[in-house]
Amino acid sequence: MTATLQYIGQIRTQYRTLQECPRNIDPQGPVCKLVVEQDYSAGMTGLEKGQLILVLYWFEHADRNDLVQKRHNTGQECGVFALRSPHRPNPIAAAVVTIEGFEKNTILVRGLDCLDRTPLLDIKPALVNESVNIRCD
Amino acid sequence: MTATLQYIGQIRTQYRTLQECPRNIDPQGPVCKLVVEQDYSAGMTGLEKGQLILVLYWFEHADRNDLVQKRHNTGQECGVFALRSPHRPNPIAAAVVTIEGFEKNTILVRGLDCLDRTPLLDIKPALVNESVNIRCD
Repeated sequence: MTATLQYIGQIRTQYRTLQECPRNIDPQGPVCKLVVEQDYSAGMTGLEKGQLILVLYWFEHADRNDLVQKRHNTGQECGVFALRSPHRPNPIAAAVVTIEGFEKNTILVRGLDCLDRTPLLDIKPALVNESVNIRCD
Repeated sequence: MTATLQYIGQIRTQYRTLQECPRNIDPQGPVCKLVVEQDYSAGMTGLEKGQLILVLYWFEHADRNDLVQKRHNTGQECGVFALRSPHRPNPIAAAVVTIEGFEKNTILVRGLDCLDRTPLLDIKPALVNESVNIRCD
């Protein structure tokens, strides 16, 4: 069984190759832009500067069939669902970040780890203690 | 632009109608089962009881075109990206829960909010203070 995702926009970062991308979200990292397509920009109403959001995005260059991979730090083999590898059956990345500001249909955040022009899937308010940042991809 | 999701399994809960589903994740709620399909079960290797995981799942009955909705508590109109409504362009639900145990290719957790047989999309280790539970859908 399958379902179809619609790209609601794209993420603009400074990373042009996978080698340049950092391995983790960095709350103090460089500013990135969540550029929401015009067709979806009405959905941004009510978002506020300083708010913590969960951003979902799509690693379109992922290998979706690699169910057992090696841990980065130890080299030990491990199932993909016990790893945060971008290579997974559904390569949906999840990051909790703070809204730094807005520019038209664009949300400014910091320190995302993805390639420039990565497809954006969803933005939701995060219900989480504001001192905690998670990265789950 | 679009991408295709593959269902990696399904979530078994006690809820047979949308009216029965709770509005929030409850860490002390009833046991639910993340039943991973055989084809994907190798990906579970390395997951451990007590571990905090981020579960992504798919609200297949969502209205995907409703960009401005009313807040549940105030009735105020609000953009979908500022809400945790299940009705959204890409109805991907995200919940952080603790692994309570295993049964073959099944992971036991507590207190998910979804219909029985909801499609399962992904499981990842959550990097989050263990005392914090978030729900982002």
